[in-house]
Amino acid sequence: MSNLDSLIQDLVIANRILAREEVVDAYGHVSVRHPDHPDRFFIARSLAPDLVGPEDIVELGLDAQPVGGDGRQLYLERFIHAAIFEARPDVMAVVHAHAEDTLPFGIASATQLRPVIHAGSFIGPEVPVWDIADSFGDTNVLVTNMAQGRDLAKCLGPNSVALMRGHGFSSAARSLIEVVRLSVYLPRNARALMRAKQLGGDIKYLSQGEIDARNAGYRPYSPETWRTWEYWANKAGCGHLLTRPDDAPKG
Amino acid sequence: MSNLDSLIQDLVIANRILAREEVVDAYGHVSVRHPDHPDRFFIARSLAPDLVGPEDIVELGLDAQPVGGDGRQLYLERFIHAAIFEARPDVMAVVHAHAEDTLPFGIASATQLRPVIHAGSFIGPEVPVWDIADSFGDTNVLVTNMAQGRDLAKCLGPNSVALMRGHGFSSAARSLIEVVRLSVYLPRNARALMRAKQLGGDIKYLSQGEIDARNAGYRPYSPETWRTWEYWANKAGCGHLLTRPDDAPKG
Amino acid sequence: MSNLDSLIQDLVIANRILAREEVVDAYGHVSVRHPDHPDRFFIARSLAPDLVGPEDIVELGLDAQPVGGDGRQLYLERFIHAAIFEARPDVMAVVHAHAEDTLPFGIASATQLRPVIHAGSFIGPEVPVWDIADSFGDTNVLVTNMAQGRDLAKCLGPNSVALMRGHGFSSAARSLIEVVRLSVYLPRNARALMRAKQLGGDIKYLSQGEIDARNAGYRPYSPETWRTWEYWANKAGCGHLLTRPDDAPKG
Amino acid sequence: MSNLDSLIQDLVIANRILAREEVVDAYGHVSVRHPDHPDRFFIARSLAPDLVGPEDIVELGLDAQPVGGDGRQLYLERFIHAAIFEARPDVMAVVHAHAEDTLPFGIASATQLRPVIHAGSFIGPEVPVWDIADSFGDTNVLVTNMAQGRDLAKCLGPNSVALMRGHGFSSAARSLIEVVRLSVYLPRNARALMRAKQLGGDIKYLSQGEIDARNAGYRPYSPETWRTWEYWANKAGCGHLLTRPDDAPKG
Repeated sequence: MSNLDSLIQDLVIANRILAREEVVDAYGHVSVRHPDHPDRFFIARSLAPDLVGPEDIVELGLDAQPVGGDGRQLYLERFIHAAIFEARPDVMAVVHAHAEDTLPFGIASATQLRPVIHAGSFIGPEVPVWDIADSFGDTNVLVTNMAQGRDLAKCLGPNSVALMRGHGFSSAARSLIEVVRLSVYLPRNARALMRAKQLGGDIKYLSQGEIDARNAGYRPYSPETWRTWEYWANKAGCGHLLTRPDDAPKG
Repeated sequence: MSNLDSLIQDLVIANRILAREEVVDAYGHVSVRHPDHPDRFFIARSLAPDLVGPEDIVELGLDAQPVGGDGRQLYLERFIHAAIFEARPDVMAVVHAHAEDTLPFGIASATQLRPVIHAGSFIGPEVPVWDIADSFGDTNVLVTNMAQGRDLAKCLGPNSVALMRGHGFSSAARSLIEVVRLSVYLPRNARALMRAKQLGGDIKYLSQGEIDARNAGYRPYSPETWRTWEYWANKAGCGHLLTRPDDAPKG
Repeated sequence: MSNLDSLIQDLVIANRILAREEVVDAYGHVSVRHPDHPDRFFIARSLAPDLVGPEDIVELGLDAQPVGGDGRQLYLERFIHAAIFEARPDVMAVVHAHAEDTLPFGIASATQLRPVIHAGSFIGPEVPVWDIADSFGDTNVLVTNMAQGRDLAKCLGPNSVALMRGHGFSSAARSLIEVVRLSVYLPRNARALMRAKQLGGDIKYLSQGEIDARNAGYRPYSPETWRTWEYWANKAGCGHLLTRPDDAPKG
Repeated sequence: MSNLDSLIQDLVIANRILAREEVVDAYGHVSVRHPDHPDRFFIARSLAPDLVGPEDIVELGLDAQPVGGDGRQLYLERFIHAAIFEARPDVMAVVHAHAEDTLPFGIASATQLRPVIHAGSFIGPEVPVWDIADSFGDTNVLVTNMAQGRDLAKCLGPNSVALMRGHGFSSAARSLIEVVRLSVYLPRNARALMRAKQLGGDIKYLSQGEIDARNAGYRPYSPETWRTWEYWANKAGCGHLLTRPDDAPKG
């Protein structure tokens, strides 16, 4: 199997995992940058992630338009992906979703979303909140053009996640495996923080040093990372699609 | 397949989706107005929505009585549907349900249910709370005659949703797809608002302009709307019942 | 099928429903009084309710001992059932369970569990809290003899449900269908009340008149009651065990 | 089947139960001490617990290194198990996990996790909170060597559970069945306490006498303990792996 075929298959797995783990429903999407053409990326056509197969993947340019004239219906919000890939050469994969327990942190002003559990460290020390109304006034709250996408990407800055007020979040990482992991643990970290707030008293967040130590030790195909990718893929019913690069550490 | 057969099939799908998404259990129901006879509507006989098939659909008049002498047992609360169809010529579909997370907003006086997430915009800027006791005193809390149904419809007014104190909600929309979507996202919006309240500080609701912008752009068979209908139908195990009007935009 | 066989089958259905609806796990049990011998009742042997079949049902006397020398292992807490059947000739079926969301109301002193939703009306206007320590000091918190069972039954009095501090609840009704329905909606009512409290402001409970009106209209085999029994049985995978008395109203 | 084969099979069941009951996801693990060589223990290789079979079990020494040169990838945090087995000769089985609802109690300072429900009694009267930063400063928050493991074991002391700040918990018991039961009911007890706190007023915890009475009466193969092990194993799809010691009381 070519590297590209295997990447497309990984993108299918990512779609199914995000659906199974309730990060996305019919809305929300995940993309991966083309490994050979950094000005292109892969994403599904307009379809619920749980129903996505390899044949549903389209190739878009950094203007969010299809490469090679693919005429199929596209996600309205593909501009989120295009703008983040444009602004962040280090980013290889992007998720946009509406996971329910991330929403309150974009709506209520009093509590900032920050990592409190080790699995949440990859969201990074700061999670900015982007409000589309600040620059664009009254809209349908969706990111439907490059100007809006670029405004969001600017708010995201060098971070891994930006919350979107009344809407959801966008996350970015160095690989598909990382962006999926980040996006699954983001709502879990949000719930742990919400409940800790209800219990009351001082909250112990992860320290900057702990966040750095975890980041420093992270490798996308380490046995620990693979373990959860393999587990989630099986849970989502697509364990048979799993492939592992030849140069990955053996489990 | 005739338009009517296809509408009945859509009504079956709507029943199954509402059950699968936990908007209804054995109680709660969904109806659709007859496209050719605006003084009639379709609804299941007295049966849990998850078990409803095409043969379980009955045709009622705006007095909530069966057309053509169908003798099967009917929902006690079919008057909700009749009264809303009577009062609102613009409405083509109605849901009544007890989705758990909508209940607290009909019970506690301090917090008004309003849209805080983009998927919740279709509930509209105002969600009135109807208390059956205000006009009818001590009852079994069910809407079991036209007078009660009309009182509820009056409270609903031009809105999309009315909460019913200690009971649930009724929602109304221009199409089956819309009323299902509205009813699935209503409890999600309720949860986001409840949790935002717990986080504390100012709450950012959707603005009137945002609600209007989302409404203006909405079409029942747009690819975005179809995407979630298709997803939910598959998740509910009735993807094979899906039909799409010939004049719908292609996905 | 004899009435007794059909009753045993209903008891199996009740076990499975309570498991599927997460009212019980491996612990918790449901019993039904013998229709011809009011001093006996049926209950499963010591087995998780989800695994119970007709062959697992045992017949006990009001001393909680097996009739006819059945030597199989019994539930430690069968005394709850015996004592309630003894004290309440009107009661035909009993549930004891630890449904998670009923627990906080037995632990925290500030909020009394009362009906706030129409489906919760059958818990009645008052839900006493029984604390085993009040009469028996430090125990293993289980009801393991008739003295403890009778103390609980006395606390229950004429009500439908008693909470048990740090343990769970016991509920009693005129039929299996009723006690199951009561027990499934009890935690739902508890959640609605908990969340309403969090939203704040005055809470609107069901009025005494509403509770009475609902009770007055209730019949175990009415189409509305049957609808949920049929739904839950199918959901629990035992729809094939359903039987309906010949004299029940037709659906 | 030899006792050892049957123990390994029990360990597989324990893995699957912990996954099914959402105590672990891809992370978290369970171990059991070798019955004949108290300086060794069994644990899965680096694999998600839900995917573990008998062939995935490895044998480690109390230095957390494989016995007999097994070269397969191991859990990074196996030192937790080694250190607890080293410090506590009475302990035969250990779980480490990140069950979501235990996390807030390790993050928020105001509320101590203590048993409030009878099923939670086995967590014991005191649940210490271990913060890896206290002795080791900024780390990746994982227990990756014996020094860290021993520090955790020291904090655990004679208790059954230690919370780990921003990470999860470790639990220890006299048998696999007990440690699984303890670990499944721990988050349930945590939720009951969290919700009781929200309801407000005084909280009634289990008394020391109640905790003692429950502990005194506990036997790993009593019918009551077996009932839940059998139930959970079936629910997790591995009821066919169940074995019961010849000398266990008959059900």
